[in-house]
Amino acid sequence: MRPSGRALDQLRTISLEPGFSKYAEGSCLVRFGDTHVLCTASVDETVPRFLKNTGLGWVTAEYGMLPRSTHSRTDREAAKGKQSGRTQEIQRLIGRALRAVANRSAMGEKQIKIDCDVIQADGGTRTAAITGSYVALHLAFQHLLQIGAIKSMPLTDQVAAVSCGIHQGNAVLDLDYAEDSTAQADANFVLTGRGGIVEVQGTAEETPFSEAQFNELMALARKGVDELVALQKTALGIK
Amino acid sequence: MRPSGRALDQLRTISLEPGFSKYAEGSCLVRFGDTHVLCTASVDETVPRFLKNTGLGWVTAEYGMLPRSTHSRTDREAAKGKQSGRTQEIQRLIGRALRAVANRSAMGEKQIKIDCDVIQADGGTRTAAITGSYVALHLAFQHLLQIGAIKSMPLTDQVAAVSCGIHQGNAVLDLDYAEDSTAQADANFVLTGRGGIVEVQGTAEETPFSEAQFNELMALARKGVDELVALQKTALGIK
Amino acid sequence: MRPSGRALDQLRTISLEPGFSKYAEGSCLVRFGDTHVLCTASVDETVPRFLKNTGLGWVTAEYGMLPRSTHSRTDREAAKGKQSGRTQEIQRLIGRALRAVANRSAMGEKQIKIDCDVIQADGGTRTAAITGSYVALHLAFQHLLQIGAIKSMPLTDQVAAVSCGIHQGNAVLDLDYAEDSTAQADANFVLTGRGGIVEVQGTAEETPFSEAQFNELMALARKGVDELVALQKTALGIK
Amino acid sequence: MRPSGRALDQLRTISLEPGFSKYAEGSCLVRFGDTHVLCTASVDETVPRFLKNTGLGWVTAEYGMLPRSTHSRTDREAAKGKQSGRTQEIQRLIGRALRAVANRSAMGEKQIKIDCDVIQADGGTRTAAITGSYVALHLAFQHLLQIGAIKSMPLTDQVAAVSCGIHQGNAVLDLDYAEDSTAQADANFVLTGRGGIVEVQGTAEETPFSEAQFNELMALARKGVDELVALQKTALGIK
Amino acid sequence: MRPSGRALDQLRTISLEPGFSKYAEGSCLVRFGDTHVLCTASVDETVPRFLKNTGLGWVTAEYGMLPRSTHSRTDREAAKGKQSGRTQEIQRLIGRALRAVANRSAMGEKQIKIDCDVIQADGGTRTAAITGSYVALHLAFQHLLQIGAIKSMPLTDQVAAVSCGIHQGNAVLDLDYAEDSTAQADANFVLTGRGGIVEVQGTAEETPFSEAQFNELMALARKGVDELVALQKTALGIK
Amino acid sequence: MRPSGRALDQLRTISLEPGFSKYAEGSCLVRFGDTHVLCTASVDETVPRFLKNTGLGWVTAEYGMLPRSTHSRTDREAAKGKQSGRTQEIQRLIGRALRAVANRSAMGEKQIKIDCDVIQADGGTRTAAITGSYVALHLAFQHLLQIGAIKSMPLTDQVAAVSCGIHQGNAVLDLDYAEDSTAQADANFVLTGRGGIVEVQGTAEETPFSEAQFNELMALARKGVDELVALQKTALGIK
Repeated sequence: MRPSGRALDQLRTISLEPGFSKYAEGSCLVRFGDTHVLCTASVDETVPRFLKNTGLGWVTAEYGMLPRSTHSRTDREAAKGKQSGRTQEIQRLIGRALRAVANRSAMGEKQIKIDCDVIQADGGTRTAAITGSYVALHLAFQHLLQIGAIKSMPLTDQVAAVSCGIHQGNAVLDLDYAEDSTAQADANFVLTGRGGIVEVQGTAEETPFSEAQFNELMALARKGVDELVALQKTALGIK
Repeated sequence: MRPSGRALDQLRTISLEPGFSKYAEGSCLVRFGDTHVLCTASVDETVPRFLKNTGLGWVTAEYGMLPRSTHSRTDREAAKGKQSGRTQEIQRLIGRALRAVANRSAMGEKQIKIDCDVIQADGGTRTAAITGSYVALHLAFQHLLQIGAIKSMPLTDQVAAVSCGIHQGNAVLDLDYAEDSTAQADANFVLTGRGGIVEVQGTAEETPFSEAQFNELMALARKGVDELVALQKTALGIK
Repeated sequence: MRPSGRALDQLRTISLEPGFSKYAEGSCLVRFGDTHVLCTASVDETVPRFLKNTGLGWVTAEYGMLPRSTHSRTDREAAKGKQSGRTQEIQRLIGRALRAVANRSAMGEKQIKIDCDVIQADGGTRTAAITGSYVALHLAFQHLLQIGAIKSMPLTDQVAAVSCGIHQGNAVLDLDYAEDSTAQADANFVLTGRGGIVEVQGTAEETPFSEAQFNELMALARKGVDELVALQKTALGIK
Repeated sequence: MRPSGRALDQLRTISLEPGFSKYAEGSCLVRFGDTHVLCTASVDETVPRFLKNTGLGWVTAEYGMLPRSTHSRTDREAAKGKQSGRTQEIQRLIGRALRAVANRSAMGEKQIKIDCDVIQADGGTRTAAITGSYVALHLAFQHLLQIGAIKSMPLTDQVAAVSCGIHQGNAVLDLDYAEDSTAQADANFVLTGRGGIVEVQGTAEETPFSEAQFNELMALARKGVDELVALQKTALGIK
Repeated sequence: MRPSGRALDQLRTISLEPGFSKYAEGSCLVRFGDTHVLCTASVDETVPRFLKNTGLGWVTAEYGMLPRSTHSRTDREAAKGKQSGRTQEIQRLIGRALRAVANRSAMGEKQIKIDCDVIQADGGTRTAAITGSYVALHLAFQHLLQIGAIKSMPLTDQVAAVSCGIHQGNAVLDLDYAEDSTAQADANFVLTGRGGIVEVQGTAEETPFSEAQFNELMALARKGVDELVALQKTALGIK
Repeated sequence: MRPSGRALDQLRTISLEPGFSKYAEGSCLVRFGDTHVLCTASVDETVPRFLKNTGLGWVTAEYGMLPRSTHSRTDREAAKGKQSGRTQEIQRLIGRALRAVANRSAMGEKQIKIDCDVIQADGGTRTAAITGSYVALHLAFQHLLQIGAIKSMPLTDQVAAVSCGIHQGNAVLDLDYAEDSTAQADANFVLTGRGGIVEVQGTAEETPFSEAQFNELMALARKGVDELVALQKTALGIK
């Protein structure tokens, strides 16, 4: 029995609210249960130095948590004067995940900056952030298409993410904080709409896990991402 | 005629949504039109060093803007590694405003940390933040009363804030971004429920303003704050 | 009775010593009693990026306190690796005050950097800094006129500042540290030679103040600034 | 054909030189071909704050690259004033890997600080670092046993790591820089002596990879780690 | 012929103004010609951690230049967020120089913090700073004696410093900026009242210098420091 | 009797291992007994801004210690976010020493970046670093000659360094840590192959030293550097 009463292979209630932000070229408020992340996509006409005159675009991401998004207050990174290792790890992951489905030559020399800000955190913020950011990115590209700044949709596939873990001996899908903080092992899976693996990060907290367990987690992830990809389609009005 | 079509002495549509955050001891999502600020109040059992063993409490505030809360994206302060002068100025103002109505000996040696995070910015974020933070602070104190951590409500009055300015020659109440960015002069007024002045900050952008103009702004502010104080009462269920 | 024995509407002994620095294009050592601030104006041929190719100039200011300018030693900001919120607030204020009387198109694309360094602090450092910086700025512009780098004096008026406050129930002019640290409320007024209001910053420390009290402070400030403006004229040899 | 001429499932020449450092309680210079990493283990009698009075120990790691360990010079992080996201990610990984085999209650309230400094980099620095750090940690614990500071060996298993990837369509073991920089996908595997999975990090650089490919990489990793674990035994003189 | 018209072995006009600061326990404004440095000595009841419970005191120093103390404006270190290598080198030198004549056990567990702030710079700021700081330190110790905080004067000798250099082929004493910036080699000498060498720092800028030249510089330094030590005595009213 | 059993004027066992690094244009692992420093020279096609279009080159140096190069672990500067004053002092010294023998116009507008990383520290790291860096620099210039990037060897002489000190009343050559930490005074001498003085830094730790003592140290240094210069020749294969 999971703390939330969910079935072992059941996602939390997912909601994707596209166009949440008034100003961003693309945006999405994503909710995985009580985890709420605001994802925005901002178009920037300059690319990083190493891409100047290559004809290629770039997608990058930044991540942050509001200080009281968490159960007890977390110190504000801007006040501490630096981003934690965890923050940097997550924002690098989000950027890689989105670039895996971006056609960077179709983008042209443009940069999309994704901002993922956690309004409320109940576990799984990075996977929610990836799932919502895809929607924001898609919308920003749609906007660029509409204004004629690009000729074709520079996306090769959808991408979404979910966490799985071993909790009280069971493989479970989409861990919330109550599970995450007591899991024996957990893994984040970033998969494409067609089922390709973009990124896998599995970590054993206390005791190492076996290959059989790992495969069980991957199967759960596949089921979860299929559902997330379908919800992204609905949110974006894609058939 | 104002860009928004409002009367000269008319506030934007104000909304105060108490209890917005699942975890914070007190919280309020405040909206002044398209300006949206999430205010949370977190109880901390430690006070700053200079208050150790004085029996007095403290209220402090931090302020931040989501990178894409603004028309064009603003660099993330956590990534830049420091808070701007503007950010520090605003968070110091919010802290002073709330301490002006806090009975710090009734609080005991506790600290309330207020976080004001701008989700969307359309002018007047600091005045919205003060108005919403009062609600969050009130709720946090109510919580402390209910659990018996304090004996009486450590608030001596309400506090709210509004900006006024000279726009196209007219004194106007509650500037939005369109007005703020072209105003000849503007001033922020922080007033108590009983009408006392807590803080006044007036700045002439291009041409200095006269004492008569300044008094006109103060009269508008008084009208605006009276309405905000009434809305705070409603939100808090106070008669 | 004031701690210093001054009348309620009496400034401290003011001294303005122009040309104090051997190297700066303009400089002034200003003394408001025991508060001593060295103000220098340095000409810089580059403007901030947002003014490139606009034909407009810029005036900016930095502020610092020597570690032992204060009663007890204050940590050196360079050693701590950052400027405090108070420092940033003050230097932003000084910059705005001077820009309010600068004719930025007459300056051409030049920047004047004002440095205000507090040699000794006995209250009112920011108002002394503004008053002295005006003299330094005027001298730097005179220098540019003399060498033919500008065609006309790019100043539209004089500017000076003074603090007022409620001390032991009385409205008093030009608070020294003994008064400032025990004042019920205080306000800084930045006014032009012709009496226009450039900036007003009033703060109630303990109990909010009334509009009547505020108007009393403004009247005192007006008297004080009139005297400071006359002293600036004398220091600059202007009739 | 691999650039180095190795077989698809062949490790580079591995060397583990225990006791390389004169001062550290444990140390090992590890070489994976031209990748050379100096790993030291330093005993610290203090634990992080969150472990005070829990009776538990801690193992943590820091990672750095000498500026000219790389093909072209990399800026020195100490001079830039911060560690990159990549550095933080790697040092967090090393710490987690070692804690997975540490018996933290057998350690008592002690901390082992691992330093992994890359003298020369030719791909796979993080996996070499984990493999060598295990040896350094083992030696530091032996030292503590010998001086009677602990009663039993606080290690539950060995741990080692290797990278695998898809290069020119083939799954290959232990990528060097020539392969790493052109691989289609790569993954780092941290496994225990008994074959448990401690950490898996797989990333598709250009095109997502399939589950079949992923399993192929895991099989190669298992072979490689078995060999590394045997080499650790030899280096430590364990049968 | 020297640019200033001085004889080869002639100091600039030296002035030592003790008690310049109203608040510091000891202070001295030192002038070596157009080089002006304000030195203050602040008593701090805490010692650095490594001296806790040793019964020994400490003397430390910090150094800074006002941004426009120099011919062209130097960026403010507090604004840049760090002290330059040059600043750190100088403040470490000043601290060592003063500790060389401090009887740290006679001080007891107290710390004297010396602040040397350059008001105007025309070469030789570090040697002026050492010479003036000795006076400030002496006065601070006198103050501690007078209030009974220490029993005896914790100074074993006087200390002063001067620079010498090879300028246009001649060995000259006390270089000003015009000489310093074109010298072939220069050296700073820190000597005690009794003639002991505390610190020597010689640097060849363009061509290495010979031992004979070096000895010539040392002889000049000895003459200069003898005069400085006599001026310190006069300033302190010591026979 | 010295702790190491060496004669008063005896260097430690010196070893210079040129070409230690696989990638650097020049490199040398230098050992002064148990002090081991890896010196690399990297060619950079850009010069600092102040040398643009002057036709002159630049040589600069950075210095670092591995955290466990020392008897007890030293905090990592990259993790602390800044280089210590000591580090900056040393790297500035190394840069000046090498520039003293560089013909910067023969270099052309190129920059050589020297990195000195201390693998193991037993006293005298800065003098070892200078001695080894000369070899690395020489090799980098040889490489530039061979590829035709420069026309002639841009070195005017050799340069090497050694420390001397007063230990238990005796003047001794090349202090190791046991001597350095208890020396009464010590000095670092940087001399050229032809015997010119490039830099002298003498510091009295406890009691000032006399001119006679200082001259004794200089004589020892001269002997030591002569031997080091001969060893550099051997390492470089120069007759």
